[in-house]
Amino acid sequence: MEHQGPLKRDLVAGLEKGLAVIESFDQERPRLTISEVAVRTGLTRAAARRYLLTLTHLGFVSQDRKMFALTPKVLRLGQSYMHSARLPRIVEPELHKLAYALKEASSAGVLDGNDVICIAATSAGRVVSPTLQPGTRVAAHCSGNGRVLLAALPPEDVDAWIKRQDLVALTPNTITHPERLRIEIARARSLGYACIDQELEMGLRTVAVPLRNYKGEVVAAMNISVHASRMSMEQLVEHCLPPLLQAQAHLRMLL
Amino acid sequence: MEHQGPLKRDLVAGLEKGLAVIESFDQERPRLTISEVAVRTGLTRAAARRYLLTLTHLGFVSQDRKMFALTPKVLRLGQSYMHSARLPRIVEPELHKLAYALKEASSAGVLDGNDVICIAATSAGRVVSPTLQPGTRVAAHCSGNGRVLLAALPPEDVDAWIKRQDLVALTPNTITHPERLRIEIARARSLGYACIDQELEMGLRTVAVPLRNYKGEVVAAMNISVHASRMSMEQLVEHCLPPLLQAQAHLRMLL
Repeated sequence: MEHQGPLKRDLVAGLEKGLAVIESFDQERPRLTISEVAVRTGLTRAAARRYLLTLTHLGFVSQDRKMFALTPKVLRLGQSYMHSARLPRIVEPELHKLAYALKEASSAGVLDGNDVICIAATSAGRVVSPTLQPGTRVAAHCSGNGRVLLAALPPEDVDAWIKRQDLVALTPNTITHPERLRIEIARARSLGYACIDQELEMGLRTVAVPLRNYKGEVVAAMNISVHASRMSMEQLVEHCLPPLLQAQAHLRMLL
Repeated sequence: MEHQGPLKRDLVAGLEKGLAVIESFDQERPRLTISEVAVRTGLTRAAARRYLLTLTHLGFVSQDRKMFALTPKVLRLGQSYMHSARLPRIVEPELHKLAYALKEASSAGVLDGNDVICIAATSAGRVVSPTLQPGTRVAAHCSGNGRVLLAALPPEDVDAWIKRQDLVALTPNTITHPERLRIEIARARSLGYACIDQELEMGLRTVAVPLRNYKGEVVAAMNISVHASRMSMEQLVEHCLPPLLQAQAHLRMLL
């Protein structure tokens, strides 16, 4: 591992910690003191202070007495990806078409560590999960996109991935047993799609397919989610899988 | 100015340039070489290389031969704001209610330099502008939210702001004459709302109001946008302004 990484003298020391300071703010702790940022990032208090002052100076953080908070300018950084990346720009129109035709919610995502990061989403007028938008993260082990993305990894990588996980139960349905999860991922691999019945959120059923590029490599996953009260899993597969597979085939020529 | 800023020794040198490297990628240039990043950020080639290697090492940038591109991990940074900030979390439910009741698109934003940054948006099932999402930036001088946000500034700040602008015409309707813009901003101030008739985009009509907190300070703006083919400006004001003012009054108690 070590000799493959960049040389230490090639790395900019301030950047990693500065980005970690931005990421240290979240819903539970939207406003932080210098000491709290220090604790959350592993920096000394003096270093945390310098990072916060720098970010305040650059307009990414605002200060109110002893409390610091992120400003909307931080959204610029995410938008740089949304504007520059090929993947969301190609997937988004297809996802909108699919969602509006079915009148259901649809999202696309990629794997990042333990999570699936949403790169495009639409609720097609229904408010299933109005907070789902580019950048939203969900646990990969119990989401539709996560399961097909895991199914695209070599089996030994899946095993290593599962070993690293806590496999938290988000609902009573969440599969938390490593061996059962391994079987479900293998099933998604052989079927070419994954079904999730209220494992991520009660009342939410999802069917997901991998998105491959023209070389056949899986580059993302795409799903349709419905309220459990409106469709059984069988109805979901019967009604939503065929158009999802059509979108998959169409995107393969574009990706 | 100078003595009000932070001391130079308090600033982390690597952070500003690292964030500038992230922002140097956009739709026109989604993939950049080291030299291109150097040109776009004003860094030396050697420094640009170190920033790109650091960002690659951290997973925010991917490398394909000589080309670098942002990865979806960059979306984490914007999400840190979306998850931590009070403003979008309070505004979003109200904006969704409003948009779904009217079956029109609605968005909220704040001023950042020359632009309005969208902090919440919904298209209510109609695809007016499917790319409008948190983080999207539009020119302030010709957008509804921009005009009411400018109207909230002291008149001398408005004058200074207008002097700094290029006032680009995005459509044949865009007001580009400084004096006319000053009059329109003053009109928005006295009316308490702003109307934009196809100045930002042909076919798009918008009515916007400022959002005040309980202290009466303007903290954001919120609008309703419709297709010009469906509503005249008079119909837009008659139909959409009253519910917009209702939402404004409701949010004032929460902000």
